[in-house]
Amino acid sequence: MAQQEIEEKGRKAKEAARKLAALSSEHKNQALLAMAEALEKGAEDIMAANMKDMDLAREQDLPPALLDRLLLNERRIKAMVEGLRELVKLPDPIGQITSMWRRPNGLWIGRMRVPLGVIGMIYESRPNVTVDAAGLCLKTGNAVLLRGGSEAFNSNKALVSLISRAAVEAGIPEGAIQMVESPGREAVGFLLRAREYLDVLIPRGGAGLIQAVVENATVPVIETGVGNCHIYVDREADLTMALNIVINAKTQRPGVCNAVETLLVHREIAPAFLPALAAALGEKGVVLRGCPETLKFIPGAEPAAEEDWTTEYLDLILAVRVVEGLDQAVEHIHRYGTGHSEAIVTQNISCAQEFLSRVDAACVYVNASTRFTDGYEFGFGAEIGISTQKLHARGPMGLEQLTTYKYVIIGSGQIRQ
Amino acid sequence: MAQQEIEEKGRKAKEAARKLAALSSEHKNQALLAMAEALEKGAEDIMAANMKDMDLAREQDLPPALLDRLLLNERRIKAMVEGLRELVKLPDPIGQITSMWRRPNGLWIGRMRVPLGVIGMIYESRPNVTVDAAGLCLKTGNAVLLRGGSEAFNSNKALVSLISRAAVEAGIPEGAIQMVESPGREAVGFLLRAREYLDVLIPRGGAGLIQAVVENATVPVIETGVGNCHIYVDREADLTMALNIVINAKTQRPGVCNAVETLLVHREIAPAFLPALAAALGEKGVVLRGCPETLKFIPGAEPAAEEDWTTEYLDLILAVRVVEGLDQAVEHIHRYGTGHSEAIVTQNISCAQEFLSRVDAACVYVNASTRFTDGYEFGFGAEIGISTQKLHARGPMGLEQLTTYKYVIIGSGQIRQ
Repeated sequence: MAQQEIEEKGRKAKEAARKLAALSSEHKNQALLAMAEALEKGAEDIMAANMKDMDLAREQDLPPALLDRLLLNERRIKAMVEGLRELVKLPDPIGQITSMWRRPNGLWIGRMRVPLGVIGMIYESRPNVTVDAAGLCLKTGNAVLLRGGSEAFNSNKALVSLISRAAVEAGIPEGAIQMVESPGREAVGFLLRAREYLDVLIPRGGAGLIQAVVENATVPVIETGVGNCHIYVDREADLTMALNIVINAKTQRPGVCNAVETLLVHREIAPAFLPALAAALGEKGVVLRGCPETLKFIPGAEPAAEEDWTTEYLDLILAVRVVEGLDQAVEHIHRYGTGHSEAIVTQNISCAQEFLSRVDAACVYVNASTRFTDGYEFGFGAEIGISTQKLHARGPMGLEQLTTYKYVIIGSGQIRQ
Repeated sequence: MAQQEIEEKGRKAKEAARKLAALSSEHKNQALLAMAEALEKGAEDIMAANMKDMDLAREQDLPPALLDRLLLNERRIKAMVEGLRELVKLPDPIGQITSMWRRPNGLWIGRMRVPLGVIGMIYESRPNVTVDAAGLCLKTGNAVLLRGGSEAFNSNKALVSLISRAAVEAGIPEGAIQMVESPGREAVGFLLRAREYLDVLIPRGGAGLIQAVVENATVPVIETGVGNCHIYVDREADLTMALNIVINAKTQRPGVCNAVETLLVHREIAPAFLPALAAALGEKGVVLRGCPETLKFIPGAEPAAEEDWTTEYLDLILAVRVVEGLDQAVEHIHRYGTGHSEAIVTQNISCAQEFLSRVDAACVYVNASTRFTDGYEFGFGAEIGISTQKLHARGPMGLEQLTTYKYVIIGSGQIRQ
């Protein structure tokens, strides 16, 4: 049954994608506005469906953090509605000719941005992702197959029913926005291998989900999210700046992928910096886990084990290591980092340049908080996730990253010699 | 043993890649020149090694086409040498900041081109691919693990030995150019799953090889090559132009992926065009397989079966179908095409525009031969393959397609609110 569902919906999505690719920006924007209105008018239905999910989740004793992510209230529905309306204001990347040149034989060759086609989204129980992803995909002319976490089944079904109906009424081809409803891992298994219908899979969620998708998919995947981020405080750092940046990157929102997890401190600055750090982070309730050298300056810290260097805490915990200098910092980052966001704090321009050039990660910072790795903060106006792989898209993914290109070649009878 | 080899070479490649990323263009160019010289000086050794492969291949009764691909002679070695020297002249994409902008909070955000890292090349028994791929990867600061067809083992070993030694002597880190030597499918299996070491796999070869890689790899793949290409001759085509284009696309080099395999002809022009086509292609020894409507105008053609629409002949055979118009042509292309190269011949600008906008393929042509789908013909100055997938790279892949980007963010203490 799951297989049949994927095949039917995959076929419909592929047909819809052909038509979506040719729609005008105006037409797509009208549909986005209609979807926003449908969510506004359907708020009561959405909350009723969400209530079912919440009741089931409480019966199953799900942890409070998950319950919080699952919850939809008026404020959160309003945020989804606003998100769709914001998309309308963004420029449509589809159809842009990003470059065009003429060959000696007179052929004109242009690169035109086009939709990817059909996108499979696999994500955990955050119903807002359902609406975000549907909006981003529609704006970029892609069809989408949505597969959210089972805990959010009723919420997602209510959301998809409202927005897909509104889209169709606004003239969007049926099959543009669909949800995979078959329960269990079997359905996901078929989705991962549905090469005939899907052009790309974007998994969003924890490390386990991402890993399972990467291991088993034959459809091309854009990996997102896991962030074991570092800040390296150089010998020549402005200590007040360093302190502010570390506090911000650790405590402003600790549960997200761009929060800092390990601090690397230059040996010569450790005696001055670490006690001040301990005091400031202590006030914020952050637990420190330090290397032996760190413990000399922060006696209250817990000793760090090997696994502390590899852990994405997503919590008020910070691992701290004293390093000999930039070489060791870069080595540590390449050994333990996940290629997400890495920062140096320094006033020395040569150190800054070397760090920027040597560190291999999606986002490399000088003198700023790693928390800026975000499509909105980068000015993209939208975000579908943060890629930690190197193919196709890296770092925050906005509308452009949901497109590919085709070459359009215009001749006057040229043949090859 | 195969596993151990992949792990050891993978580790070395990854270490080399970190250093390669920081090398200057001048340094890389010096190494390319040294590699070219080493091939020139080692021509005798290369031909001796190739002789061993040729003898073994003849003993195994390999088909002539394969023997021809395997053969290395002075002319072919010279072409490899020239290829490396040509690379020196091309601009180095690495380190380019393709865009940079300032955010309202004063953060500067730039997109910098960087190498992909470690590239795995899996290909059939064409020893020239060994040198081409090594040169392209070095130019773009990538380390490469080469796995050619077993029939070319001795040739590849001689080539890799010469160029990797020359590269190391020119100061390139060891491990930048390596060959996987363990025999059999087991070694390929480990390569396909070596996520810890490889950033991307590029398979080059027939449909079977590509399929096996795509099905089994957990490393991200760039699919290349299979081309079931179409030309649609519209009602308003210039018939002489159409004839020239079809003859060129079918006969100039029939064994390659950008040759045309199926011709679609507008019903209204079929009576005038098809007899002329049959005469012209008949002279070139092309066998025609037609739909029932085609057979009316070309009585000598063989009847086409369903599988003729799906076959990449790579031979002097052309399938011909009469269609009602653009809609049916586009439908046929989407149903049977492989997303490689598709062309329309028409003098009508509206038809041309509609074809360009609706056809979903890497390269969409108006009034030119599909044979131009090629990195050199596009003006890239190099080519590592032709991608038929949509992620990361589409169509001919030059130096840029062997790169990714990272964001460099420069602040003055910014923290997120």
